[in-house]
This record gives sequence, structure tokens and C-alpha cells, in this order.
Amino acid sequence: MPLLESWVESANSPDTDFPLNNLPCGVFSSDACEPRCGVAIGDRILDLAAASAAGVLRAADPRALAAPGWNAFMALGPETWAAFRAELTGALSRNASQRPALEPFLLPRAEVRMHMPFAVAEFTDFYAGRNHAFNVGTMFRGPENALPPNWLHMPIGYNGRASSVVVSGTDIRRPWGQLKSPDHDMPAFLPSRRFDFELEVGAVVGQPSQRPVSVAEADAMIFGFVLLNDWSARDIQAWEYQPLGPFQAKATATTISPWIVTKAALEPFRTSTPPREKDLLPYLREPAPMLYDIALEAALAPAGKPETVITRTNYAEMYYSAAQQLAHHSASGCPMTVGDLLGSGTVSGKNAAERGSMLELSWGGKEPLTLDTGETRSFLEDGDRVTFRGHAQGPGYRIGFGECTGTVLPAIDKPDWA
Amino acid sequence: MPLLESWVESANSPDTDFPLNNLPCGVFSSDACEPRCGVAIGDRILDLAAASAAGVLRAADPRALAAPGWNAFMALGPETWAAFRAELTGALSRNASQRPALEPFLLPRAEVRMHMPFAVAEFTDFYAGRNHAFNVGTMFRGPENALPPNWLHMPIGYNGRASSVVVSGTDIRRPWGQLKSPDHDMPAFLPSRRFDFELEVGAVVGQPSQRPVSVAEADAMIFGFVLLNDWSARDIQAWEYQPLGPFQAKATATTISPWIVTKAALEPFRTSTPPREKDLLPYLREPAPMLYDIALEAALAPAGKPETVITRTNYAEMYYSAAQQLAHHSASGCPMTVGDLLGSGTVSGKNAAERGSMLELSWGGKEPLTLDTGETRSFLEDGDRVTFRGHAQGPGYRIGFGECTGTVLPAIDKPDWA
Repeated sequence: MPLLESWVESANSPDTDFPLNNLPCGVFSSDACEPRCGVAIGDRILDLAAASAAGVLRAADPRALAAPGWNAFMALGPETWAAFRAELTGALSRNASQRPALEPFLLPRAEVRMHMPFAVAEFTDFYAGRNHAFNVGTMFRGPENALPPNWLHMPIGYNGRASSVVVSGTDIRRPWGQLKSPDHDMPAFLPSRRFDFELEVGAVVGQPSQRPVSVAEADAMIFGFVLLNDWSARDIQAWEYQPLGPFQAKATATTISPWIVTKAALEPFRTSTPPREKDLLPYLREPAPMLYDIALEAALAPAGKPETVITRTNYAEMYYSAAQQLAHHSASGCPMTVGDLLGSGTVSGKNAAERGSMLELSWGGKEPLTLDTGETRSFLEDGDRVTFRGHAQGPGYRIGFGECTGTVLPAIDKPDWA
Repeated sequence: MPLLESWVESANSPDTDFPLNNLPCGVFSSDACEPRCGVAIGDRILDLAAASAAGVLRAADPRALAAPGWNAFMALGPETWAAFRAELTGALSRNASQRPALEPFLLPRAEVRMHMPFAVAEFTDFYAGRNHAFNVGTMFRGPENALPPNWLHMPIGYNGRASSVVVSGTDIRRPWGQLKSPDHDMPAFLPSRRFDFELEVGAVVGQPSQRPVSVAEADAMIFGFVLLNDWSARDIQAWEYQPLGPFQAKATATTISPWIVTKAALEPFRTSTPPREKDLLPYLREPAPMLYDIALEAALAPAGKPETVITRTNYAEMYYSAAQQLAHHSASGCPMTVGDLLGSGTVSGKNAAERGSMLELSWGGKEPLTLDTGETRSFLEDGDRVTFRGHAQGPGYRIGFGECTGTVLPAIDKPDWA
């Protein structure tokens, strides 16, 4: 698909994340207004709540767009999603007659504050990248036992903590937790020393289910995607995770990008999951390509210093798509809800420079990374800022996610009861 | 504490679950009204929304009590909880002057329909019963490796699925899932053959936190307790749970009793956790007794047949209290929310007749139970009704939970895509 030209000139640049082809969904506020729904277009944001209330846009209920999250809009369903996207695409295109009516509702993005784009109903995090699972498994159990026996048969996942999901730009406190060193008999309660990021893509569930759904039905339930940083305390995790999985190691925070890039915008970039090493059970087979070709990168900037891009990878590396994950999630009859967030699992490529976590990049701390500043890192240090970026590349334009960023702050002082 | 006598005569019986000392919190509807807050008193329910709106009760905002869940009331905080309880206790006591004003708001409990007593924000399930952990660990890993190394140092838990929590009386569909028999190379997608219950007590979090809280602070955040059945598909669990814990095995449904028994009602029944085998880290030490002496039982009734009580145990068997669990849950900075539900973990006593799951009662299916009807059971069969009951025993009265019940329905037909 070619670039769709817009009368918003900044949207026609090949470098913007937000051409007319994208129209990602966010929630913003300004001095003049409370949090409400908007879409990004070039260096502007369109105030959908105001434009709809004024009758300039008519395809969606203005009350849904006046909410401080996209949940109510998502609940309106795929027909409304499509009709609203078509209306917006037309109204913002080069020669649209709506320009004079719509122009007053465009604000400079640089002047607004971004919020959580939706209320997270529940958060599930998967482990669906084969390279990541193999790398982590090799470090923990050796290469011959790296992949658990079930891994090639189902997308392994665990329920995370929705209350911990925050929007890009939120500072992240280094967590306290139980750590146990192999040299000690007893654990200690200390700030994590192996605090890490995980580079992921999150799928936003836009329709509910009350029964098991097929992969095709699951695909139709997904509204869009965000960048997602599953902050992880590796030392807390190592001690706590047997036998019931990660708990406090993953509960401090999960950062998402402020923009939901819709599935509609990503349609031209669909790609297949890799060939199966073991036949999948029919309930997990994909009737069509359900991954996306999305280039991803993570950058690390020590406090007050320039950033170094420390990894470049692609969402197409995943072994299971979000649609497969959602179908599996519903298999037991688990009710799925509008606003559920499914983390892809860490996206790591095959090569060392394509790994999606410090754990893998520094190989468990044994091979510290050297940054452009000359500093080295095994895990994250206080003051480090981690920034993810991602985009799908079209001919002369890109469908971008904006940034997903967070800075690690020192742990809180030790409470007197601890 | 002695029985507090009420002018509601049925509340003065030693056999009722709901004397004046209890006043548990539920949500009910009738032909005449939408779901709203009520308390049980004897065989009646007091319509708190109507009584407050009419000005007969004044200690809590009537709008909070008109909601179809106790979340808004809980958010008002412990001072309001105490003031409202004091007002209700006075108004319902033997010689209360409020009797004529309050009597019109009492309905027969038999004539109302009970709903979820609160909106579950997030659901966390723990594994904090030593006997249960030892029994399950012995079956899976042998007695010498039964308890994981971390178990005596922290309450092990995992995040469950809030969307799956249902109120007592809701039918439960046997789940489909991936099962792998040891004799086969490949898994199959089938209805669970080892579907089970877990007898638990759930703690309802009534106040939020944004930072690590002490055990004493955690205790103060807890509003009350429910009976909780953590329905579990053992065969799905065995195949999926490594390395990230239970997922679809626990996602079909979790049943809770319709009544939240408040912490205030249980105060006289506080008891200590057992002596520690390993010193706990200070952040998990209890400054006072924080378990409760609550007798629990589970009964199983095949379709159309009388029930057999298959286990009798006590909440005081837990190794970690709900306050310890909540303190641990918050340790990493995980934000806790009004309406969070924390499952205790299966409550199993030391003896075979005190085990809280079919997995333990039938020792993994090797020692099937014989019911009073003469039938045997290793796991649950279609049509089986499982009912939990629980109460704390005072002198001449009891603080009961009502019933927590559910009937297992056959799995849905195989979907054509599966």
C-alpha cells in the first residue's frame, strides 16, 4: 500500500511514525481538557472527543471518545472500528472537504500530555519467542534442556499484574525483594541487583469472549498493538519462580507506549509464524499469516548521557502470534475482556546483537555490554533510561509506535519494618 | 465474646450462620430491585441501599451501598467500616429503638437472588498450606523434594484470572485443554479428565497501596474473607505448568461464597500461624496473630443424589496468613487495589480425612474415595455438586460463610476448528 497523503503536511514525511496510514489511538490531556481519546497524525493530535461532539466526525458515539481510555470505543466492535477509520482516513486525506471543520481540533503533539491509552482489564505475559526461550533456558538449564517439553506445543504464558502497567515516561523504582545468593543458606530482603527490561509487543484485546475461540476469531478480537517493556528483577525471579512461576519479579511495573497501533494499520505488514518443528494441534493452527513485520529497537542512556542502541530485532521472530496466544488463553473457557493486554514475550533475534533483554545481551552478566559512552552494563543501573522504538516499513512511509520509555530510579529507603 | 441478641429472632439461633455478631456483606436482587448491598441477619437480608437512602442508616454514603458491589463502600476506609458496623449492630440489637424504622427493609433471604459481592480487581492465588504443598510435592517430586527451597521463606503465589471468578451457585463447565499422557509423544486437545476442586479461604483487599506495606499495614487493608473454590484441571496443569506456573488449568472458574465475612466479625477468632521451621525475614513477621480459627468442610453430591462430606479441615492450618501474603505481594512495589482477591491456597490438615482437594483425597487417583452413596471418585464427574461450608465457633453462636457451591457440567461439544 502506498503512502496516503494528508493535508496535515507533517504526516507526509517518510520519517514520521504517524502518517495517514497509521492513525494510532492514544489518550491525551492539555491545560484546556481532561484526558480523552485522540489519534496522532504527523506532529499533531486530533481531539476526537471534541470533533465528535461537534458533529464533524459521526461514525462513533462521542461519549465513547470522551472517555479517558479506548475501552468504550473498542467495545463498540469491529464494524465501528472500520467505519471510524474510514471516516478519519477520508477526512484527513489531501483534498478532504472536511479540512476547515476539522482543523480547529488539531493540537500540536508537543503540547499535550499522554496517558494510558486504555484501562488494562487483565495482563497476560507470554514467552513465545523461540530465541529468548532458548537463550534463557540455556542459561538456567543448559542447551540440551533449554526448551521445556511443552514449549513447541503451546504458547506458554502466565498472568501478570494489570495494576502495574504504566504509560511511557513513568519513572520506575528499583524493587525490593527476596534474593538468595548461592553462597548463602538464607535469603535476604534487598533491592534487586539484576534489574532488567524485556522488549515486547503487546496485543490489546478489543472484544470479549465467554467460550473457547478459534485462532481466526481471536485475530478478529484484537484491536491493536503497543510496545511493551516487561521490567524484570532476575534475582527475585530466580529464587521465587519454582513451582508457580514469576510473581514479584514482574510486578513492579510494565511500561507500554502511549499509542495503540491498530491492527487495520498493520494489515499490509502481516507475515507468517516460522515453520513448525512439531505439528500444532488444530486449535492453534493459523488459517492465514498473523504475525507482523515490525522492526524493533531498544536504547539505553545512562543518567545525563546520550543513548546507545543496544539491540535491533523484529516482531516477526515470534514463534506464536497474538491470535494463537489469545485462542490458547480462551481454550479452558477463560472469559476474555475488552482491555485485556497480552505481552508477546521477549522478542530476540538469532544473533547476539538482536537479543531483547540485558539477561541475554550480557549472557547473565558474564559478557557485559559496552555502551557508546564507554561505560559497561550487565543489568540496569540507577538513572538508566530504556527506550523502545518500533515501526513497520512501507514504501516511503512507516507505521510507528512512538516511544516506550522509562528511567530506573533508586530503590526506596529500607522501610523500618523490613 | 457472647452472642449479641437481635430483635430478628432467627439470628439468635445457635445454628444460623448469621447472628448479629456476623453481619456479612453481600449483593442481592429481587423482583423489586436491581443488585445492591445487603447484610445477612438470621434468615433475613437487610436492604442497606434502601435503608440508607431513607435515612434510617447514616454512617455510610447511600450511593456506595446502592452499587452492585461492596467496592465503593470498601474504598471509604476502615473508619467507615467500623462506624457502619457499630451503627448496624446497635440498630439490630434486641431492644433497639430503630426496629420499627428498619423492619420494612428486611427481606426473607430465601426470596432474593445473590450476586458477586464485589467486583474482583485482580485475583491472586497462593500455595500457603504446608500440608497441601507437601502432599502435592510428594506426588510430583517425591517426599524428599516435596517442598521447594523457597517455600519456608515466602508465601508462594501466582496471579490468577479475575474474569473467571463467579458467585456460588454458578454452574461450572468441564474445560477443554492440552493433555499429554506419558505414553504418548504428542499432546491432545480434550476435555479435562482430572477436574478438581481446591478448598480455600479468600481475603478481600479493601484498601489500596502504592508501595511495600508491612504485615500490620496489610492486616489493616483487609476487609474480610470469603470461601473460595479454585477449580483446577490437574491434567492440563501437569503438562503446562513448567516453567511459568499454572495458566489454563486454573482459568475456567473460581467460585466464591456470596457473603464477605468481615475481619471485624472474625476478630474473636484470631489465632497464630504455626511455629516457623526457618526464621522469616523481618518484612514477613507477624506482630500479632493473623490467622483465624475457621472450621471448613467440603461435600460432594453426585447428580440427583445426597451429598457426602468428604473433608473437614480448618483455616488455622495455613502456614502464612492473608496479611503475610498481602505484605509479600506488595514487596516489589506492586500496586494493590480495592477489590483484589487473595486465595489462601488449599487448606489441608495433617490427616487423610482433612485434605482439601480430590488430588490429595484420592492420592492422585490411586486411592479413590467411596461416597455414602457407594459410588467412588478419583476426580470430579459430570453432574457432581461440590459445596463448601465454613464457620468460626463462638459460645452459643457461629460466624458462618453460607455455602460456596457449584455443579460440574459436561464439557461443551468439540468446536469444529479444534
